[in-house]
Amino acid sequence: MENKIVLKFGGSSVESIEKMQQIVQKIIRKKEKYQQIVVVVSAMGKTTNQLLDLAKQASKSPSKREMDMLISTGEQVSISLLTMILNEQGQPAIALTGFQAGIKTAGLHTKNKILDIDTSKIEKHLDSGKVVVVAGFQGFNEDGDITTLGRGGSDTTAVAIAAKLKCPAEIYTDVEGIYGVDPRLYPYAKKLDVISYEEMKEMAFLGAKVMEPRSIEIGQKYGVVIYVSSSLTENGGTYIKEYKKVEEKSITGLSISEKVMMVTIKNFPNHSSDIAALFILLADNEVNVDMISQTPTENGYINLSFTASADDLDAINEVLGLMGKKYHDIETVKNINVVKLSVVGSGMRTQSGVAADMFKLFADHNIDFMLVTTSEISISYTIDKKLMKKAVLAISEKFGL
Amino acid sequence: MENKIVLKFGGSSVESIEKMQQIVQKIIRKKEKYQQIVVVVSAMGKTTNQLLDLAKQASKSPSKREMDMLISTGEQVSISLLTMILNEQGQPAIALTGFQAGIKTAGLHTKNKILDIDTSKIEKHLDSGKVVVVAGFQGFNEDGDITTLGRGGSDTTAVAIAAKLKCPAEIYTDVEGIYGVDPRLYPYAKKLDVISYEEMKEMAFLGAKVMEPRSIEIGQKYGVVIYVSSSLTENGGTYIKEYKKVEEKSITGLSISEKVMMVTIKNFPNHSSDIAALFILLADNEVNVDMISQTPTENGYINLSFTASADDLDAINEVLGLMGKKYHDIETVKNINVVKLSVVGSGMRTQSGVAADMFKLFADHNIDFMLVTTSEISISYTIDKKLMKKAVLAISEKFGL
Repeated sequence: MENKIVLKFGGSSVESIEKMQQIVQKIIRKKEKYQQIVVVVSAMGKTTNQLLDLAKQASKSPSKREMDMLISTGEQVSISLLTMILNEQGQPAIALTGFQAGIKTAGLHTKNKILDIDTSKIEKHLDSGKVVVVAGFQGFNEDGDITTLGRGGSDTTAVAIAAKLKCPAEIYTDVEGIYGVDPRLYPYAKKLDVISYEEMKEMAFLGAKVMEPRSIEIGQKYGVVIYVSSSLTENGGTYIKEYKKVEEKSITGLSISEKVMMVTIKNFPNHSSDIAALFILLADNEVNVDMISQTPTENGYINLSFTASADDLDAINEVLGLMGKKYHDIETVKNINVVKLSVVGSGMRTQSGVAADMFKLFADHNIDFMLVTTSEISISYTIDKKLMKKAVLAISEKFGL
Repeated sequence: MENKIVLKFGGSSVESIEKMQQIVQKIIRKKEKYQQIVVVVSAMGKTTNQLLDLAKQASKSPSKREMDMLISTGEQVSISLLTMILNEQGQPAIALTGFQAGIKTAGLHTKNKILDIDTSKIEKHLDSGKVVVVAGFQGFNEDGDITTLGRGGSDTTAVAIAAKLKCPAEIYTDVEGIYGVDPRLYPYAKKLDVISYEEMKEMAFLGAKVMEPRSIEIGQKYGVVIYVSSSLTENGGTYIKEYKKVEEKSITGLSISEKVMMVTIKNFPNHSSDIAALFILLADNEVNVDMISQTPTENGYINLSFTASADDLDAINEVLGLMGKKYHDIETVKNINVVKLSVVGSGMRTQSGVAADMFKLFADHNIDFMLVTTSEISISYTIDKKLMKKAVLAISEKFGL
């Protein structure tokens, strides 16, 4: 019998009492294998969105401290109900809010980070044989205010508790595991049995939505073995852990960001102070600029292109309006029919020529790209949305994803 | 400018964002008059019932600790939203859960009592000019568990905070104040400008539902002046306070309990040990017996009648089944077509003859009663449901309610 495990179930796994009853059966089966179980859960289904809607009705810019207090009720409801069902089924259990579970956080409300977890209460109840059901996504700050952890917060809660308890974490979600490429884009996609923290983090940053990079970072830092799997099937999922392949594939995964727009500013002055002013203004307007390229024009100007999230359209329009007033010669083009395609593989570090292989592949298939950027273990391209399927197919086949 | 006030708004006053916006206007007007305002709110409209339904789906007998954790989310949602609206309207405000407001409780989960309130956090925020919005109905126990206070808990929270802050409490509800008799039963009913704690408590115990006796008891103990009024109108409500009338009316109020049943056990042994055994068994089954009478029969037995809440029917059936097995001669009759009618007046203490007046009134109007009990300041009758209107009319006219 193994010692401890942290199990995490997302919102769709607990969206109804029926779904919770299935989860409880899974937890009870796990209890035959593990002496001590911590369960971390998200809010039921669409609860968080419903609460956000209420807040929007209450105020155009709701006070963030109260926003955290409001949305944290979602997990408080799901842990209470799941614990009732566990007790009903004869498995002693206790529900703990983020505060009760000792999850200390700091930072801006709605975007807190975990500082530390005082696991003494969790461990006391584990020692008494109870399954401890902890509210994901939430904690408390030094003022005793309720805080939340932002996107992917429940994964972060689960991995952080596992780090403190020195045990593995199993993340149950609505996908069967991590795929080298999204099966909706490439039907023959292979599920990975294992992926390194580094590759998973890079894929998450580049748009793969299965897990947030923050939880992977914590996993990597504390050596928590993370297992990602579907809560519905007993099929094998994917392990995320420290992992050295004997012979590394050059590319492990491919990820796509569809909510992307590309902005091109033609005839922009070729002075670093003007360019800096543009990007400072974008940052001040909370536009998160991703890929950037600039090319000189024949008349001494530059053409400057960058990509950003399509959600930032309003802010970008604001910035471009201000720029137009200052620089009368510029011409701006916004293109929302683009996607960002990224290939990831820690093998790139040791194998030269991956970029060359990619350029050749794109040329062979007549896939034009607009922007390209590289990191140590990834290459990203901005391409026309229409070319996405062709590119995914070509890359997946070539690199056996 | 007066110093401090506690305002309490019930579930129907905060059932929607629109209703909350009206409440916020009321609070802002009050802020012109009072330097420091604490607002206590209940859960929005039917929220608590919806959460109870979910719990019922989760488990036949939900663990009570998690029940408290579940239903306390209702007030957490309403304080968050109300505070967002106050801030939006330019009135700085802060929301505090029962835990954050320092409301220490003890007792059985779902039925906790307030032990003490550490108001330091409330006072800190009041001193900084904020309206402090506190979740009614909830607190925390010595284990750090979330607790709730049972029926009428938000009134209790409001009056207890007022007691600690040494200020009055205003309870806003969906009635305009306290009436001598329910206006739905007697359309000419008069609203009372003032009623003593003692009379209010007696009326509450006897079935008037405007306020729970617990909050009145706290008000009486700490001399909190309580004002009950409608949140919708600016019409005058009713003050509950220490109050000596120059010339007391013999009867101040009349209250009706409709959820009553009367049980008669015929041919029960006339031994105190058997009678005691019956009432111990009823108590063990959590049947709250109210009025009791016994009369000897000609064959040496007694006929024994008592009333209880109609909600206790299942438990009563259980007890009567056990009794039937032990005493083969008994015959039991359950009557759910009865009501309890009570008249209350602290004047009864000094004016003799109120009971005689009542008996004469009942005789004059051919109103038969089945049981009668008296306390120092009240008389209660069990009568047939069909006679209720006639009795209410006769009493209201005779005593000018």
